[in-house]
Amino acid sequence: MKNPEIGVLVVGCGTVGSGTVAALLSQQEHIRSRSGVSLRLTGIVSRTFATAREHGFPEDLFRTDLSTALQDEHTHIVVETVGGMDTAEAIIRSAIAAGKHVVTANKALIAERGSSLFTAARDAGVTIAFEASCAGGIPIVRSIYDGLAANRIDALFGIVNGTSNYILSRMVQDGSSYEDALAEAQREGYAEADPTLDVNGTDSTHKIAILSRLAFGLAVHPDDIPTVGIDSLDSADIAHAARLGYVVKLLAVAMRHGTGVSLFVRPAFISREHPLAWVSGPFNAVSVYGNVSGHTMYYGRGAGGAPTGASIIADIVTIARGCYAPVFEHSCAWDSSDALQHVPAAGLEHRFYLRMLVDDTPGTLARITKILSDHGISIASVMQAESDEQQPPKPVQVVITLHRTVEETLSEPLAQIAALEAVKQAPRPITIIDEHPE
Amino acid sequence: MKNPEIGVLVVGCGTVGSGTVAALLSQQEHIRSRSGVSLRLTGIVSRTFATAREHGFPEDLFRTDLSTALQDEHTHIVVETVGGMDTAEAIIRSAIAAGKHVVTANKALIAERGSSLFTAARDAGVTIAFEASCAGGIPIVRSIYDGLAANRIDALFGIVNGTSNYILSRMVQDGSSYEDALAEAQREGYAEADPTLDVNGTDSTHKIAILSRLAFGLAVHPDDIPTVGIDSLDSADIAHAARLGYVVKLLAVAMRHGTGVSLFVRPAFISREHPLAWVSGPFNAVSVYGNVSGHTMYYGRGAGGAPTGASIIADIVTIARGCYAPVFEHSCAWDSSDALQHVPAAGLEHRFYLRMLVDDTPGTLARITKILSDHGISIASVMQAESDEQQPPKPVQVVITLHRTVEETLSEPLAQIAALEAVKQAPRPITIIDEHPE
Repeated sequence: MKNPEIGVLVVGCGTVGSGTVAALLSQQEHIRSRSGVSLRLTGIVSRTFATAREHGFPEDLFRTDLSTALQDEHTHIVVETVGGMDTAEAIIRSAIAAGKHVVTANKALIAERGSSLFTAARDAGVTIAFEASCAGGIPIVRSIYDGLAANRIDALFGIVNGTSNYILSRMVQDGSSYEDALAEAQREGYAEADPTLDVNGTDSTHKIAILSRLAFGLAVHPDDIPTVGIDSLDSADIAHAARLGYVVKLLAVAMRHGTGVSLFVRPAFISREHPLAWVSGPFNAVSVYGNVSGHTMYYGRGAGGAPTGASIIADIVTIARGCYAPVFEHSCAWDSSDALQHVPAAGLEHRFYLRMLVDDTPGTLARITKILSDHGISIASVMQAESDEQQPPKPVQVVITLHRTVEETLSEPLAQIAALEAVKQAPRPITIIDEHPE
Repeated sequence: MKNPEIGVLVVGCGTVGSGTVAALLSQQEHIRSRSGVSLRLTGIVSRTFATAREHGFPEDLFRTDLSTALQDEHTHIVVETVGGMDTAEAIIRSAIAAGKHVVTANKALIAERGSSLFTAARDAGVTIAFEASCAGGIPIVRSIYDGLAANRIDALFGIVNGTSNYILSRMVQDGSSYEDALAEAQREGYAEADPTLDVNGTDSTHKIAILSRLAFGLAVHPDDIPTVGIDSLDSADIAHAARLGYVVKLLAVAMRHGTGVSLFVRPAFISREHPLAWVSGPFNAVSVYGNVSGHTMYYGRGAGGAPTGASIIADIVTIARGCYAPVFEHSCAWDSSDALQHVPAAGLEHRFYLRMLVDDTPGTLARITKILSDHGISIASVMQAESDEQQPPKPVQVVITLHRTVEETLSEPLAQIAALEAVKQAPRPITIIDEHPE
């Protein structure tokens, strides 16, 4: 598709849609000069046009009827920014049926129903591009399929949710409680009124599902990815992490393991030596380990209308140049012989941090460490806070770090420890993510 | 160019050439599966084949005569890894004349003679791709032209020389002297026997010249870029940086300024809040500020055969997909109306750090600060070390940081300060790079 002028219809005009429209209008001449691609906004479809009017977008571009708008032969690419599942899917399917290429920021839809949409697009000879679905303004999708084309990807971990990272950064830097940090994120516009899908990890799960498809040719349904959010974190863990030389981050992880790939999302300790540890506030970053390039990392704003709109426009330009088809045909639908299996994350080996509250009675620590050693689990460090002189004595915190251990071998000893009479709060394991070997 | 099988001839078989050949041989099947591109190594041209034999590359691929090798109709792409200027240029021109696309890692050649080579390639209908010329394994070239296609780039700063960064990291982390850190870098294979071009900034200058061409459509000869290397640094500056909350990095910088762009390479203070401050050892990273995406950063191994070879292969795959031409036609040769002028870096406004040695005599500090204020230069902080009780007293260090000041306004007051009788070592200004406004 190397038309002299590429027509773009933007469907949905909320944060991402208006960011896209604003950038399309303001950057048109610059894009033509840099990329040799002439883009023209052929219409904006919205239910109310409230945001479109706020931004002062030209009213002659307002289209109330999608079907009519899709018939415009000057429209080559349809941008879906409505979000959600069924309506967005219907819009994309109509666009495909009308022979239009599709660009979307819809991570939930691509993660859950990508395979079927890709098939429909391929049958119609059009593309679905989705750079904007992962990590906002970071060109991570194209870096994986294009920049790292020479590599077998061995691991990929990322901070891919800006809301969670903002909250964690506040907890780490200011010692705020989770509740106070969340309230601040909401005041600053980094968390929505209902932040559930961000803080419980669901949003990160969608993104790691999409990135794994690109990196490993692996289609995993987000529901099958074990997910823990930051809403379960205690500020004590954040303080212990700092003391031990780590930073707590909500990580979305995909790692090769045996003949497969394991995926998970959880708050984890990452060493201050790792560049992901320094990704603060609303920023996102993804570390990718390729067997030839080694470690590369991609950093930027993970959300917001302008950065996400910029990723949408990058996809539009790539389609306009005729360069997106290979992604769709290959990176998203690898030869099945090469696609890896999804294997349970519980089989992965990590170091772990455990924190528990115990009565400061003689022999308790000995019993805990014996249970671990009886299960062949090797302790790296133990810290028991000094008890005060109060009567009766208050329970004390015990923090243990473990050498590399297969995760599933922890459940039995941790259950035994939790059952000890002296243990007042069961051990909470947190994964320690080491620098991946290059 | 969407041939079923793309033939690749690798010319030169040193570190980068052998890294490329090794990856081409080992990753062939993986690349086909991921990208749908079948690559075939059609030959290796080398003077001695010493490295090629060390790696055990198949001897039936060894070609001693370039002209004959270029006649092979199964070769579509020629990879130039010879380095240097004239021989490399001759190889590239022969390849172009034979109708082959060219992929090169040769930063000096692209920076100094890129325009003329690009014209030759365009006239012949082929491409010159050069991802590997900047920052080794980091896909920075394609991120600027493709991933950030929607953006007007406002600034770009990077750590683009791994040798210098390794040395500085040792100086910062271990308090090593420059000489000891350099010796260690040489032992570890991160510095060559003659490290001049790395530590004096020349290598970084080549890279910022190339990146500026992509980001701003601006062709600046490396000789016109003001360049200071790390060989001028004193470990006292590194210690003061740490005390003030900064890290010293050798930065290659390009910034829009008025109607133009200014470029420079120099050791600079960068805040510990900036992610570039955490780029350690042999790693490189480039921060790019786009007017839509905001700040994005790209991190990875800046040198070495495998990472650089991976970038070469990424270019080969992109050419094989038929997607490289636009880069060459547009991003490297913007419409002249859009190309910006190169304006002197001395016109840029920065904060500055000054260190000098002065006799601890009454009134010296007052005289220094008066000279600055007489020139309208505003002081942010002053630190004078306590003098010891020795007789005669030894000169003491005075460290001054300045508020934002246009660089060229500093020369006159600094000359006056240097001329004061009490000043034993003239003030050495170091630029403080602030987070660029997004």
